Amino acid sequence: MTPPIYDRVALIGLGLIASSMAHAMKQFGLAGEIVGYAKTEETRRTAVEIGICDRVFATAGEAVQGADLVVLAVPVGAMAEIAADIGPHLSQGACVTDVGSVKQAVIEAVAPHIPEGVAFVPAHPLAGTEHSGPRSGFATLFQNRWCLLTPTEKSTPDATTRLRRLWEAMGSNVDEMDAPHHDLVLAVVSHTPHLIAYTMVGVADHLRRVSNSEVIKYSASGFRDFTRIAASDPTMWRDVFLTNKEATLDILGRFTEELFTLQRAIRMGDGDELHAYFTRTRAIRRSIIEAGQDTAAPDFGRAVPAKKPSE
Amino acid sequence: MTPPIYDRVALIGLGLIASSMAHAMKQFGLAGEIVGYAKTEETRRTAVEIGICDRVFATAGEAVQGADLVVLAVPVGAMAEIAADIGPHLSQGACVTDVGSVKQAVIEAVAPHIPEGVAFVPAHPLAGTEHSGPRSGFATLFQNRWCLLTPTEKSTPDATTRLRRLWEAMGSNVDEMDAPHHDLVLAVVSHTPHLIAYTMVGVADHLRRVSNSEVIKYSASGFRDFTRIAASDPTMWRDVFLTNKEATLDILGRFTEELFTLQRAIRMGDGDELHAYFTRTRAIRRSIIEAGQDTAAPDFGRAVPAKKPSE
Repeated sequence: MTPPIYDRVALIGLGLIASSMAHAMKQFGLAGEIVGYAKTEETRRTAVEIGICDRVFATAGEAVQGADLVVLAVPVGAMAEIAADIGPHLSQGACVTDVGSVKQAVIEAVAPHIPEGVAFVPAHPLAGTEHSGPRSGFATLFQNRWCLLTPTEKSTPDATTRLRRLWEAMGSNVDEMDAPHHDLVLAVVSHTPHLIAYTMVGVADHLRRVSNSEVIKYSASGFRDFTRIAASDPTMWRDVFLTNKEATLDILGRFTEELFTLQRAIRMGDGDELHAYFTRTRAIRRSIIEAGQDTAAPDFGRAVPAKKPSE
Repeated sequence: MTPPIYDRVALIGLGLIASSMAHAMKQFGLAGEIVGYAKTEETRRTAVEIGICDRVFATAGEAVQGADLVVLAVPVGAMAEIAADIGPHLSQGACVTDVGSVKQAVIEAVAPHIPEGVAFVPAHPLAGTEHSGPRSGFATLFQNRWCLLTPTEKSTPDATTRLRRLWEAMGSNVDEMDAPHHDLVLAVVSHTPHLIAYTMVGVADHLRRVSNSEVIKYSASGFRDFTRIAASDPTMWRDVFLTNKEATLDILGRFTEELFTLQRAIRMGDGDELHAYFTRTRAIRRSIIEAGQDTAAPDFGRAVPAKKPSE
C-alpha cells in the first residue's frame, strides 16, 4: 500500500461531500487520520459513530490544528465565518481547500484569512445526490466525475499537485480553470438548470386545477427528472444563487429570451421554427452520449430500466 | 394460454410506441395477427424484418381492413389525414384508438371520420424514451406506467373495457379522465417541462463564452437530465405544442411569473424566500418517492449508480 497523501485531514462541515470524501479516503488509504468539525453535536456524534471521522472537535479552530489538509465543506454562505475562525489555528505548510459550488465568492470569503505559509487551493467536485447529511455519503460518489480546481495567488504548485492527486485517487477527473470562468460554466450546466427545476416544481405545487396526487402519479412523463433536481439541499442552493448572482442572472436572462421566442412560435403556430429548434438540441444529447457522460439506455422517466431496447 | 384480446391489430405508424406495443402484444399473446402501415417503404420493410408486423401495407386504408383494433400511432399533426384515409375502410364493430400525447386535438381530428358502428377510444400511454423509429421499441416499455383513456361519445363501454384490458395486459396502470383535463395535466407534468428543457439546452448551445465541449464534459451536474428530455422526437414534440397550445401557454405563463419571482429574490439577495421555496419543492420529491414513482437511490447526474449509500 502506498503511503497516505495527507497525514491528517480536517473536514470542516460533515455533509454529503465531506462524508463521501471520508469514505473514499478511508477506502483507498489516502489520509493517515481524519478529524472533523460540524456545527451540531448530533452530527459530530454521528460522524464518529458511523466511522467517517476518527476524532471530532466542538470548534473548527481545534479541528484544524496539526492538519496538513483542511477541507471547508460548509455552505458557501458560511465560508467567511469559518475561515475567520480557523485562520489563527492553521499549521505552517498546511493546505486549505473547499468544495463549494461557487468559486469567486469563496475565494473572496476565504483568502483574506489564509496566513502566510499556508496554501489555499479552491476545488469543486461536480458530484452530488439530492440527499444531504453525514449519513448520505458513499465512497464512490466521485468516481468518474469531474473535480475543478481554480488555483489562486495563494495556491503553490506543490499544494495544487498534491490536492489533484487526492481527487484523482478518489476517482475524479481533474481540470483547472480560473474562478470567473468556473462560475459561468456552472451557471450554465448546473445553477440555472436547478433554478428552473425548482420553479417548475413550484408551479405544479400550487396549481389548483391539477391535484398534487395527479402530479405525483404521472410525474414519470418528464416532470420527475425536475423533481429530483429540485430536491437538493435548500441551504446549499440558496447560497449558490446568492453568491453566483451575476452569472446566474445573465444565463437566466438568456433563458427567458429564448423561452419567449419558443412561446411566440407556439402562439403563432410556427411549426417549422419549433421543429428546427428541437432538432438542434437533439444533437447536443448525442454529443454527451458520445463523450461518455451518459448512456443511451432508455431510462427516460423510468424508475428501473427494465430491459435494453430490442435492436 | 388465454385467447388473444384482438384477432387482428392494425398499427398505423411504426415508431417507438407502436413497435413497443407490437413486442408486448407478441410476448403476451394479445393479438392474433399484427399488421402495419408506415409512410416510408424502408420502415415497412424494417417492421417485417425485425418481426414486429406479420404483414405490412403500402396504404393505411388497406392495413385497417378486417382489423378489430386500429391503433393510430402517428404524430398528432398527422392524425386528421390518416383518419380520413382509413374511415371508409374500417370494419363494423372495430375499435379505433390512438396513442397521441394530446387528446382534445386528436378527438377533433379523428372523431368526424369514424363511421357509425365503429368505436373510438382515445388513449395516451405515459411512456417513452428519447429514441424513435421502429427499432427503438421494446416489450417492457409500458410496465408499471400509466395509460390514460379519455373516452368520447363514440366510445362504447365494451370497446373501452376491452382496450383497458389490452393496456393492463401490456403492464400499464389505466386511468380514465376527460380530454381537457388530460391536456392540462400533461401540460404540467410533461409538455411544459419538455419545452423548458429544450430551451435550456438551446441556451447552452449558443453561448459563445462557454464551449460546447465544456457543456458536454460537465453536464452531469444537472444539465444532463435536461438534455435527455430535450433529445425526444422533434416532430412529435412540435405537434404536441401546436395542438396543446392553450394549456401549454397557460402553464408557461405561470412558470415565467414564478421564475421572475425567484429571479427577483436572487437579485435582491432575499435568501429567506429562496430557502423557503426550495424547502417546499423538496417535499414534492419525497411524495413521488413515497408513491413509488421513483427510487431514492442517488443517481443524480450519474450514468451508472455505482453503489447504494452506505447508511
